[in-house]
Amino acid sequence: MTRSAELAESLALSRGGSILLAVLDGLGDVSVPELDGRTPLEAARTPNLDRLAGNSALGQHVPVAQGITPGSGPAHMALFGYDPVSNLIGRGVLEVLGIGFPLRMGDLAARINFCTLDEQGIIIDRRAGRISTEESSVLAEMLDDITIPGVEVMVRPVREHRAGVVFRGKDLHDGLDDTDPGAEGLKPKPVVSPSRECEHTASVVSEFLVQAEGMLKNRDRANGILLRGISVNREYPRFGERFRLNPAAVAVYPMYRGLASLLGMTISNPSPADLSGQAKAVSEALSAGHDFVFLHFKYTDSAGEDGDWKRKMSALEDFDRALPALLEPGFDVVLITGDHSTPCPMKQHSWHPVPLLLHGGFQRVGWNDSFTERQAASGAVGTVASTDLMPLMLASAGRLEKFGA
Amino acid sequence: MTRSAELAESLALSRGGSILLAVLDGLGDVSVPELDGRTPLEAARTPNLDRLAGNSALGQHVPVAQGITPGSGPAHMALFGYDPVSNLIGRGVLEVLGIGFPLRMGDLAARINFCTLDEQGIIIDRRAGRISTEESSVLAEMLDDITIPGVEVMVRPVREHRAGVVFRGKDLHDGLDDTDPGAEGLKPKPVVSPSRECEHTASVVSEFLVQAEGMLKNRDRANGILLRGISVNREYPRFGERFRLNPAAVAVYPMYRGLASLLGMTISNPSPADLSGQAKAVSEALSAGHDFVFLHFKYTDSAGEDGDWKRKMSALEDFDRALPALLEPGFDVVLITGDHSTPCPMKQHSWHPVPLLLHGGFQRVGWNDSFTERQAASGAVGTVASTDLMPLMLASAGRLEKFGA
Repeated sequence: MTRSAELAESLALSRGGSILLAVLDGLGDVSVPELDGRTPLEAARTPNLDRLAGNSALGQHVPVAQGITPGSGPAHMALFGYDPVSNLIGRGVLEVLGIGFPLRMGDLAARINFCTLDEQGIIIDRRAGRISTEESSVLAEMLDDITIPGVEVMVRPVREHRAGVVFRGKDLHDGLDDTDPGAEGLKPKPVVSPSRECEHTASVVSEFLVQAEGMLKNRDRANGILLRGISVNREYPRFGERFRLNPAAVAVYPMYRGLASLLGMTISNPSPADLSGQAKAVSEALSAGHDFVFLHFKYTDSAGEDGDWKRKMSALEDFDRALPALLEPGFDVVLITGDHSTPCPMKQHSWHPVPLLLHGGFQRVGWNDSFTERQAASGAVGTVASTDLMPLMLASAGRLEKFGA
Repeated sequence: MTRSAELAESLALSRGGSILLAVLDGLGDVSVPELDGRTPLEAARTPNLDRLAGNSALGQHVPVAQGITPGSGPAHMALFGYDPVSNLIGRGVLEVLGIGFPLRMGDLAARINFCTLDEQGIIIDRRAGRISTEESSVLAEMLDDITIPGVEVMVRPVREHRAGVVFRGKDLHDGLDDTDPGAEGLKPKPVVSPSRECEHTASVVSEFLVQAEGMLKNRDRANGILLRGISVNREYPRFGERFRLNPAAVAVYPMYRGLASLLGMTISNPSPADLSGQAKAVSEALSAGHDFVFLHFKYTDSAGEDGDWKRKMSALEDFDRALPALLEPGFDVVLITGDHSTPCPMKQHSWHPVPLLLHGGFQRVGWNDSFTERQAASGAVGTVASTDLMPLMLASAGRLEKFGA
């Protein structure tokens, strides 16, 4: 399914038009009963998007594969033209990217859940009663004092009972399982090295757990920890080199900033940290010579996760009002879409295809009068894989050579 | 993406209905401002195609991959059910096929550009001032006299500053780079063998260049040559054997005749060399027992390449007038489509999906009242890969067994 992206990589030119990729996180939705079966995108007042749709080619894209619900990591990797399966980013890595931790290549990261153990060491609450962020911050700071010879250990709070740990040192490898058994009434799983290569990694992680246990054991609750998604921050082919672009990312949320920086994009600092600041940053990035700008807008997803279709409509309307400012700098090609669907009735990510609007370059236009899931499903672009979007943007911007004579 | 074609190959029956594949080269287009945003196919008067569309299933196909613009070679290979990436035909081979040169298996072919060098041997004009075809014909005839022991050398004029060279002999291999550095102000690149296997090939090509240099050096312009697309005419699985068909090709342009003959199709000689002669040849091929006829119509593409939407409309209307004669012989299945899009506003091939009309066999019909990009995009066949078309034609003609019990 990534053949198009691989071919595009080999056919990419270093010149051509400029591209704006605007991602409305969790954009796609399903029929909402309270909206008479319409989706928030159908129900929202989005005159600017609708006008643009009339002069664009619509379509829909499938993030990983039909029926597969993606996390934010794979969904974005696919948008950027990376096979989301072979380029799966570890959960621990994503977690610490999400708090803006400055990860380096080769760092081993894991998510920590503070949990409560009984006297036999059996888990009685996997979330330690969802202790407050304040309480877990104190615990994280304590664990941050753990020292292991030859390895730098960094522990940072995330939210409520969650924290993240990063090990920095030589010879750290992927391969360790979660210590979280996934259920209460069991003991945390021991760290077992699956191979000779992982022995050092396993001993580092075990040593961390032993010291953490010593520090926490006298507490009433949050007296233990569980590790999940133990993963190495590996190197990915750089986006700019792959597609011969000079990319910039205009994102407010740390995880998306972290993801873009993993791929070598220049990270801008929108100020204020809202759409007005982002529009300014987008314009500045283009002026500064960035021929590819990734804009990330979070609030459609947050509203979907909360099942709040009114707030999702408002977020869409906010974006619509910001659209003229985003178009003003005059990108040659603009793709507006989501990374995945987050339907309000589901309150979570889903597998549904995501509507897209491709503007600029040479397109079949005049087919549509609004930007909705329904019009997108029978748009000129058809149904494509998310990994097809980079080739379509590059082609529209005149940045791909012909394949074969 | 060629899974369907591979399965069809293994399930093909040697009996069943007859198939006409009519290819309107460069058929697909985009919105043309001067046509109020319609495409030439939308704007042309095509009553016969429109009537047929009402009794056919429409759809659109993607030649190589989303966003990838194919050359004529890969686009046709895909139509014929060959993976266009692993069956990429060399540029030199296509070039000499395009002038009707009777290539044999194992021949090494390359395109020649006559160029002008200064006294230091630096390229000052990569096209030698686009010398006339007459002038380059004289030069080609001169170079045709070059003799290399053990190898037959044949040089033929193409057009303006272009010619083709074919080396026939043992042990000739793919792997040499172009000698054209792609820019003026540089010397032609030397021939370097990338492997032991290519050493003989490299020495043959070098010897040719040395002798050519000697013959041309005293001229004012066109005193040097550059080679491009040095490639061996390799063997491809024969189309008729793959799909258990007795195929014939009714094409006027040499390149498409050459391509069809590479795949083992019988080549007919339409007379006159226009649609009336082609319609007669199509009918004769069916009578002669060919159960698969490939008809190639060039003028939609030429008009697109020239950006002449009026001429593209005329070409479409010409084809429409010829349609009754093409249907008259009574093929069981007729597929009308293009090999790729050649949008007039772009004046070149493009990546846009190509509309298709599948008639005969059992289909979902009555959905459409005209054959256009727009109706095709939401037609019963949906959006498919070009390599899916052979399976769809064979299935419609009742020529494929069931897969599995």
